[in-house]
Amino acid sequence: MSDALSAAAGRRLVILAEGHSNDPHHGKTMRGVVDYGQDTVVAVIDSARAGELHKGIPIVAAVADTTGFAPDTILVGVAPTGGKLPQRWKEILADGIRAGLHVESGLHDFVSDDPLLVELAAAHGVRLTDLRRPPRDLDVPTGANLRVPATIVHTVGTDCAIGKMTVSLELDRDARARGLASVFVPTGQTGIAIAGWGIGVDAVVADYIAGAAERLVIEGDARGGKDLLWIEGQGSLLHPGYSGVTLGLFHGSMPHLLVLCHIAGATEIEGFPGHAIPPLAEVIELYERASLPARKAKVCAVALNTRFLDEAGARAAIAAAEAETGLGADDPVRFGPQRLVDAVLAARGC
Amino acid sequence: MSDALSAAAGRRLVILAEGHSNDPHHGKTMRGVVDYGQDTVVAVIDSARAGELHKGIPIVAAVADTTGFAPDTILVGVAPTGGKLPQRWKEILADGIRAGLHVESGLHDFVSDDPLLVELAAAHGVRLTDLRRPPRDLDVPTGANLRVPATIVHTVGTDCAIGKMTVSLELDRDARARGLASVFVPTGQTGIAIAGWGIGVDAVVADYIAGAAERLVIEGDARGGKDLLWIEGQGSLLHPGYSGVTLGLFHGSMPHLLVLCHIAGATEIEGFPGHAIPPLAEVIELYERASLPARKAKVCAVALNTRFLDEAGARAAIAAAEAETGLGADDPVRFGPQRLVDAVLAARGC
Repeated sequence: MSDALSAAAGRRLVILAEGHSNDPHHGKTMRGVVDYGQDTVVAVIDSARAGELHKGIPIVAAVADTTGFAPDTILVGVAPTGGKLPQRWKEILADGIRAGLHVESGLHDFVSDDPLLVELAAAHGVRLTDLRRPPRDLDVPTGANLRVPATIVHTVGTDCAIGKMTVSLELDRDARARGLASVFVPTGQTGIAIAGWGIGVDAVVADYIAGAAERLVIEGDARGGKDLLWIEGQGSLLHPGYSGVTLGLFHGSMPHLLVLCHIAGATEIEGFPGHAIPPLAEVIELYERASLPARKAKVCAVALNTRFLDEAGARAAIAAAEAETGLGADDPVRFGPQRLVDAVLAARGC
Repeated sequence: MSDALSAAAGRRLVILAEGHSNDPHHGKTMRGVVDYGQDTVVAVIDSARAGELHKGIPIVAAVADTTGFAPDTILVGVAPTGGKLPQRWKEILADGIRAGLHVESGLHDFVSDDPLLVELAAAHGVRLTDLRRPPRDLDVPTGANLRVPATIVHTVGTDCAIGKMTVSLELDRDARARGLASVFVPTGQTGIAIAGWGIGVDAVVADYIAGAAERLVIEGDARGGKDLLWIEGQGSLLHPGYSGVTLGLFHGSMPHLLVLCHIAGATEIEGFPGHAIPPLAEVIELYERASLPARKAKVCAVALNTRFLDEAGARAAIAAAEAETGLGADDPVRFGPQRLVDAVLAARGC
């Protein structure tokens, strides 16, 4: 899967975001690909907003309106809860196939298992790619994850969907700008859509989470990440639903350093009332203790998502996080990734 | 699946253990079903040992030699690494089907996906049951796991395959003998083969480990476990391959109390050289800290597997574990489950 995907980099994408182009949560695949992807996004489909722009990209009503932009691929840019493919979106994908577009999707409902889409794709000679379909030959880790030369940096968090992928992407980009051999390692559907390779570790058989993570580390090394590998985190050790994925990914990727991600002000797991988020210093201790004896990991910085605060509030929250944890903290999206990369490089030197 | 399995309790089993009836590790399904199962085991198939006995049960060379015992089901009693179904075993299962036996298997290779066995089973009117096939409608937890009346006791460990299932079974049996409404909750293939219900949590999609565990808690409650639910543990938070399953099961089952299982003298994860097992007191702190804030769990006893020690060595190891941890410790298989159940009931009272 990875080779086919990466060979396809430099494409011209139409992003299907019907009903969600303005939705910061479920529309995160669209936003991630627009902000960090290597491909050209030529149009976004969302019929309710046709005629508007998203960061300069035209929003259109239907596939028929995209032909002037010479697209080659239609990407599902929405990550709905449950990962199902609604009938309306299926019809839009079918329109795309009829227009000669390849299809890419990160949903749990695989497009390449849908008889109608499969038949149509064969008739029109296009590919159906499921970003979340796990490789068939996964197994438990071999120990090779302990032998790559790079410093492995893993973003971990107090909750899901708080920006761990974005932090990894921002810090990787800054490290590359500094001339370091740095690679972002994607572990979820949006990261895969952005980078063109990876494994959705939440979709593998439970026994193989760590084995999948090890394989990603090895591939990140093979892709040139000899100085730094940034492993995109998933979930949280505090999350009552997804903590198993979090720990399997953590242990399988064998990080040296952790960057703790948190939304300033959050005190409870989103969608799980009664599940408290403890103070940051306690969360840091939890993650460090949970690392394996074979490679104890250290939290070296705090990435604070300050989107709910004004600028003064954001600066105050960052200062408070630094005072509480004794670590460098910043919001890398709002104020730039430099301070967090400095903190990682300083910890790496130790 | 659960209903079909439990409806079938009281059966007459032939256990396929070809090449492994004397193998304590891979033969653990056979041994567990013989020692703790509710069904009658009428024969064991292992051609190399034909004519011998296993705990009074005749070992025979082939299905043809079992007809005098009036079996109704053939169960795969071996758990090979990787979970594949060898050709030789498939032929034995085919012989069983031709003799009118239902087939049960806990392998990752599903018998009900094998075209030859499926065709044969249809022709002979028998059922093929895969104990490890996950239910289709799993999801993330709902919070219902926090609302059952029982004290939930979860066996956790320093490693895989050290007796967590056996400890849960022994303690459940003793609790029932004391008149308590107690239920053993199976989470792996052998536990399912023994109890006739359950979900193999290592075989579900990674995102749903905790959801599967919650479902098992709810079913254990529905099966009458109003005083005590004993959740069979899997893997270890220290295991580089399986820790994700361990934490997802731990969080999804929301235990009040933990029983820490350990093989006396083990200092390293089996099969993973360089992966140290820290001192027991440190492991206890790790498990307690890893419990969710919504229900902090407490380790209340240590179950020590002393199979590599003589009796004096076993008693000394138990005393040392008690001195190190300040908790009650015992080997429930060797010396009986009473002291550990006493420790659980005392902690439950607090």
